[in-house]
Amino acid sequence: MSHRVAIVGAGFGGLFAARALRRAPVDVTVVDRTNHHLFQPLLYQVATGVLSEGDVAPAIRDVLRNQRNARVLLGEVIDVDLQARELVVDTVGERSRIAYDSLIVAAGAAQSYFGHDEFAVHAPGMKTIDDALELRGRIFGAFELAELEAEAKRRDTWLTFVVVGAGPTGVELAGQIAELSRRALKRDYRTFDPADARVILVEAAGKVLAPFPEPLQHRARHDLERLGVEVRLDTLVTGVDEEGLDVTRDGVDGRIDARTKIWAAGVQASPLGAMIAGQVGATVDRAGRVSVRPDCTLPGHPEVFVIGDLMRLDGLPGVAEVAMQSGAHAARTIARRLRGDTRGRPFRYRDLGTMATISRFRAVVSIGRVRLTGLAAWLTWLLVHLVFLTGFKNRFAAAANWAVAFLGHGRRQRTITERQVFARKKELG
Amino acid sequence: MSHRVAIVGAGFGGLFAARALRRAPVDVTVVDRTNHHLFQPLLYQVATGVLSEGDVAPAIRDVLRNQRNARVLLGEVIDVDLQARELVVDTVGERSRIAYDSLIVAAGAAQSYFGHDEFAVHAPGMKTIDDALELRGRIFGAFELAELEAEAKRRDTWLTFVVVGAGPTGVELAGQIAELSRRALKRDYRTFDPADARVILVEAAGKVLAPFPEPLQHRARHDLERLGVEVRLDTLVTGVDEEGLDVTRDGVDGRIDARTKIWAAGVQASPLGAMIAGQVGATVDRAGRVSVRPDCTLPGHPEVFVIGDLMRLDGLPGVAEVAMQSGAHAARTIARRLRGDTRGRPFRYRDLGTMATISRFRAVVSIGRVRLTGLAAWLTWLLVHLVFLTGFKNRFAAAANWAVAFLGHGRRQRTITERQVFARKKELG
Repeated sequence: MSHRVAIVGAGFGGLFAARALRRAPVDVTVVDRTNHHLFQPLLYQVATGVLSEGDVAPAIRDVLRNQRNARVLLGEVIDVDLQARELVVDTVGERSRIAYDSLIVAAGAAQSYFGHDEFAVHAPGMKTIDDALELRGRIFGAFELAELEAEAKRRDTWLTFVVVGAGPTGVELAGQIAELSRRALKRDYRTFDPADARVILVEAAGKVLAPFPEPLQHRARHDLERLGVEVRLDTLVTGVDEEGLDVTRDGVDGRIDARTKIWAAGVQASPLGAMIAGQVGATVDRAGRVSVRPDCTLPGHPEVFVIGDLMRLDGLPGVAEVAMQSGAHAARTIARRLRGDTRGRPFRYRDLGTMATISRFRAVVSIGRVRLTGLAAWLTWLLVHLVFLTGFKNRFAAAANWAVAFLGHGRRQRTITERQVFARKKELG
Repeated sequence: MSHRVAIVGAGFGGLFAARALRRAPVDVTVVDRTNHHLFQPLLYQVATGVLSEGDVAPAIRDVLRNQRNARVLLGEVIDVDLQARELVVDTVGERSRIAYDSLIVAAGAAQSYFGHDEFAVHAPGMKTIDDALELRGRIFGAFELAELEAEAKRRDTWLTFVVVGAGPTGVELAGQIAELSRRALKRDYRTFDPADARVILVEAAGKVLAPFPEPLQHRARHDLERLGVEVRLDTLVTGVDEEGLDVTRDGVDGRIDARTKIWAAGVQASPLGAMIAGQVGATVDRAGRVSVRPDCTLPGHPEVFVIGDLMRLDGLPGVAEVAMQSGAHAARTIARRLRGDTRGRPFRYRDLGTMATISRFRAVVSIGRVRLTGLAAWLTWLLVHLVFLTGFKNRFAAAANWAVAFLGHGRRQRTITERQVFARKKELG
């Protein structure tokens, strides 16, 4: 029997680990709660009607179809038995155990409301396809409801969109919503001008795009403001309800009336991390990440790798690139051991740079010492994402959707489902 | 003030009526329960992962964005006050009235279970985007669950798909599911060969594609069977549950074990038809369609047109073409009246032919005396649908999805949402 590798999660980390094992003498089992991988950096485009869910969420088994040593199972890992070396998996309706020789835990992170989970009802996050489709319904639904509202002040609350958190996701979302209202929806409504919509980006820290070099932060803020986004820094959200948000800045309380709120402020690693760490006494930080050894293994369990957003190592950020590289590192380590080389080599992260789009034709890019802004940055973004979507079924449909959104002025993917209309009706009484 | 035209429903009938009024001196109000028009003939491709919902469901207001005399409202018409000439509309959360001078009722039809609405839970219909996304989750989910099932007999029930009703929708769905299992999903699973999946097409009548000329019916059945679809004619469904269906044929009862059932058997016109007919004593047939005068107006109310699937006239079928033409007829009649020409002209339907795809490269087409089958018919289908998707934001993304599905061998749109996984979990206990 071959060496059995179990991988929990098919995000960037899990998928790159699985792919990197394709020539190794192992049996790979990938377990995920959904049937799809998620190209998370483009999720905001699903929420704003640019891309379809299929464009950013290929079926995991489709990505791995030709890798004969890999199988994919739909199920939720609810426990890890480190002693018996078994996963406890809740498949749809049943519970089963999967034995492993090596384990790669790549369960990722979910939205964090910093102890205020009650905010989630009124300010959904942006971490899953379900989130993105929910937000799509809310964003386009808000414009529909504004068209129905005769009273100006109430209409304004439908036309106010608040994004909480000015990391890349928040910045990209705010930019897209502004672009939607200023350009894409022009001429669609009769009782108001969608360009009058307010887009407010609220951030607790003193800057946007914290991980970027300072000049790019300033440029991003400048570009956002030129697009019509109101950027409110040093502002803390203290309450969220159906009608708006309570905020506080420098000890002064304020209120923003807004029907549509989106939470892009923080992440919390999967509870699986704490569950595993608890068994061996490993440290877990406030964000739920497990402190691992330099080679990404769990202390005392060299056969268990914790990678990506779930891993705490050297202050590495929770970005796709870290997940991919740590996944590949875990895979290479397993393959090396099977060849008899058991030296643990530390994981070395190679920073390939970082980028964020502001609107069409505008982005900020930081690669080593190279810093790009404006059109040059946007073209770099486009190129990199077209290349990265390889292995995805095809890039042409995504590219066609982009052509419509960026060159034309429409959004092809703005379907509100009847379930969403029904749910909203119930909420609004 | 301009003449006010209210249009209920933005299907083919309502949308064609609105478009045909673009140069008339009228104010058009289109009311629909959803924000999208639905290109229903391609809905089966959303269910089977070929197209995204945005490909077949453009936003109504996007289609009408440049028609300045038209506005679009999201709302459900719950009553028509023929005396006061007002619609009673339930917009999200509120109730309002919309006054009209002319009314076009194009509310269409929903799935009919012929008095067995309890079948719907286990055998969803195929009339809305919600239906198609639900079926997408069930179809791809069934293969996922088959992969998890160790017991062969139980696995077979996950790999059995039953389509009830052999009209164009049922035939196209059965063909696509067969193609999915025989071609598109090849190599995706490890514990079974998806080509072993059974696709059963159950029909109460003695033939498939009843509205087509007989030679095409035979050809369609032959093509389906060659593709691996089991066609069971003269077979009545008497019960549907989670595990399968009860059927009866020539008085002999039978049972089909199948986890995935799809209902494509009948339609029931919107209850709005009966509501209106009741006020004037007009006849309503068993399918809920309102008998109208030869010019598509409601008896005694020349200002009210009932068109499309909601109209009963001269035995015309409930197809897109009839809806479009009757919509345009109503619009032209209103425009003529405003020019002073009040003669009511009868609606004359021009049959432009009918077509159905069986699989990629195979279809049946009947246009006048011309009958096509096989590749020639399929190319005709492709051409007609590419042309018809005009006015849709762009055809290129749809065409790109088609290229992947028909020339390559994949399905790009097979995302199962977490909500669907969760719902299925609950159902299966």
